[in-house]
Amino acid sequence: MKASSFHYKTLKEAPKDAELISHRLMIRANMIKPLASGIYSWMPLGLKILNNVESIIRKNMDEYGCLEVLMPMVQPKSLWDETKRSEEMGPELLGFIDRNKREFYLGPTHEEVITDICRQELQSHKDLPKTFYQIQTKFRDEIRPRFGVMRGREFLMKDAYSFDLNEEGMNKSYQAMKECYQKIFDEIGFNYKIVKADSGAIGGNISEEFHVLADSGEDTLVFNDKDFSSNVELLDESLKKEIETKIAENDTNQIDSIYGKLSIKKGIEVGHIFELGNKYSEAMNLSVQHDNGQRILEMGCYGIGVSRIVAAAIEQNHDDKGIIFPKNISAFDCSLISINEKKSNSVREKAQEIYSFLIGNNIDVFYDDRDASPGIKFSDSNLMGNPYQIVISDNNIDKGILEVIERKNQAKTEITEKDLLSLFN
Amino acid sequence: MKASSFHYKTLKEAPKDAELISHRLMIRANMIKPLASGIYSWMPLGLKILNNVESIIRKNMDEYGCLEVLMPMVQPKSLWDETKRSEEMGPELLGFIDRNKREFYLGPTHEEVITDICRQELQSHKDLPKTFYQIQTKFRDEIRPRFGVMRGREFLMKDAYSFDLNEEGMNKSYQAMKECYQKIFDEIGFNYKIVKADSGAIGGNISEEFHVLADSGEDTLVFNDKDFSSNVELLDESLKKEIETKIAENDTNQIDSIYGKLSIKKGIEVGHIFELGNKYSEAMNLSVQHDNGQRILEMGCYGIGVSRIVAAAIEQNHDDKGIIFPKNISAFDCSLISINEKKSNSVREKAQEIYSFLIGNNIDVFYDDRDASPGIKFSDSNLMGNPYQIVISDNNIDKGILEVIERKNQAKTEITEKDLLSLFN
Repeated sequence: MKASSFHYKTLKEAPKDAELISHRLMIRANMIKPLASGIYSWMPLGLKILNNVESIIRKNMDEYGCLEVLMPMVQPKSLWDETKRSEEMGPELLGFIDRNKREFYLGPTHEEVITDICRQELQSHKDLPKTFYQIQTKFRDEIRPRFGVMRGREFLMKDAYSFDLNEEGMNKSYQAMKECYQKIFDEIGFNYKIVKADSGAIGGNISEEFHVLADSGEDTLVFNDKDFSSNVELLDESLKKEIETKIAENDTNQIDSIYGKLSIKKGIEVGHIFELGNKYSEAMNLSVQHDNGQRILEMGCYGIGVSRIVAAAIEQNHDDKGIIFPKNISAFDCSLISINEKKSNSVREKAQEIYSFLIGNNIDVFYDDRDASPGIKFSDSNLMGNPYQIVISDNNIDKGILEVIERKNQAKTEITEKDLLSLFN
Repeated sequence: MKASSFHYKTLKEAPKDAELISHRLMIRANMIKPLASGIYSWMPLGLKILNNVESIIRKNMDEYGCLEVLMPMVQPKSLWDETKRSEEMGPELLGFIDRNKREFYLGPTHEEVITDICRQELQSHKDLPKTFYQIQTKFRDEIRPRFGVMRGREFLMKDAYSFDLNEEGMNKSYQAMKECYQKIFDEIGFNYKIVKADSGAIGGNISEEFHVLADSGEDTLVFNDKDFSSNVELLDESLKKEIETKIAENDTNQIDSIYGKLSIKKGIEVGHIFELGNKYSEAMNLSVQHDNGQRILEMGCYGIGVSRIVAAAIEQNHDDKGIIFPKNISAFDCSLISINEKKSNSVREKAQEIYSFLIGNNIDVFYDDRDASPGIKFSDSNLMGNPYQIVISDNNIDKGILEVIERKNQAKTEITEKDLLSLFN
């Protein structure tokens, strides 16, 4: 892609209400554009990254045998009455009536809809186990939306639901999804922790959260050097208070507890998996024939905040120059920066040659062909966060080399053209 | 994909309210599942086809230099007040208030939102021309939703918007999109017509519709053997009446008119392109600096009914046994049908061998490995509509051949294994 054919208008300053670094950088890098409080449009650059995240999720879910569906955003209130969540969810559930005076909600989650589908679709134990998933727009009417897409009202989520005949099956489906999530977050390139969590309004007994470690995280996580790890929410009050005090005092030392020495970290929740048991299947009568009777199914549900992942990736990977995207989700494989190409024919020709060569080899390159100063090109490229910058200048052409800057550490290396593709292996 | 790992529960009967053949077949083939009036979930089979349609659209839009964005489904009413469409659109525009008492609509289209983005983003003629597009969920509160996803309330649409400095530029952008749409509909495999159309609530002077030809189409199209073609809506009242009478009488003869001899066909609208001019840019003050002044931009907009395309493909391609999907959008490249595989080890082994061979060669095959009668397997496969059925039976194994049935004409051929891949070239 050439800059002249793309749309990438960076800003020097972020809006004043943008406190969080990812929010500031996403606005400055022209990734998102606010439309209303907590509601954003994804601009071409941001959407490319969002689509990369989606692809990684979809690929791994498919590999784990999950079946993709697409459920509606608009859901009848009657379904939510069956599970009593119409009241339980509170005012985050945005309701409205259609022109025929029927009541609906804008779906914040899809347990009711998938359970309704499955009570029509699953008849026998032969139909089990099944895990359905979707990547779809949700709406939660947060009272105080903030932090950009980190806590927006309209957002993209991957939600999955498993159906099993018994608890043993549910455990298996849950463990498979846990493993699948690890593959997903590994592939994205996150440094993350899995912790025990509270099940909240979704319900069920067992749940775990996947947290991207970042100082700006809203959640506090504790873990020992064995297998204990938990969201601080689950601890008893006195231990919780002790931890909060330490955080307030910026004390990063470990803390003694009945769980042994605990380390404390801040995290951003990007995934949450639940063993739901029969909360929804019981309320909505989802059962199959089994042993001459009807058997209520055991469910699990599994969420990933797709839009939020983009913000979390930035919280974990940035410097004072801008964003450093992990290479599997960066918008482009590299940037191509031509120095003074309007004045130098040889720079322009060499840049075009390298551009065509990379495209021809399926390398998705962003070629900054604008008539802009090197300073502007470098600062825009640093903001965009592609893993490599390939610099074409008269000086480098004379030396017969290409200059490559690694975005992560700004390390400069000189390579020959024939070694160029090895960067992307 | 194996049937045992998929979810594909066909129905013998469609619901009584399903009049249209595509609606009936989509329900029977487990492609969609109704949730509420005009609101459907896409089941695994249907979604695969929908995703294929999306990919064809995305690829062609990208090749024409359009930039993909993703705008919100929830839109502030204030934007619609600027263009006065809050009233103009009538009750199809579904409104609601959020918990902070602010007024919103569920977006049926995005002219206002994209114009709002562009008045912030486009500053100079150097930023032009630009065409943005998205593939996104829309909501239109139809008073009488019917015909399944053909006229649903929540649906998937591809909408694109072009921005130019002057009319000449707008004409160019419009022509490029017209060409791009032809590539898209050719690639899908439609028999279609482009006709002059009414601009309706979208506005502008020039607009054309893309219609898939099908007897069940709601629109009537007329065309001569030269370059005149039009939606009947645009004709004068007396000619229109004459045509309606002929249709009522099932008279398929041509009709004499001031446009010469006119043929009459029924069509399903799947695309609509508009030269909007400055309707939105004027109302919302979208201008750029030019010649020492501000210049109001010229816009175009371009829609494709993505969900509707799936239904239209079925209207145009079906027989009394089920669906015959065009090969570029079919859920799978072929079906693999094993005859009595529970009783015959050699059938089971051969089917597994052919399955692995096809998968290994990137052929997306649906292997019906169920313990079901040949009759059920064939009728389910005919309903699903993949272009080829490869039949494995003891008889064929003895003869050393594979039997291939072309779904379209039910023609049977015998081929050797080494010729199998040539089917998919």
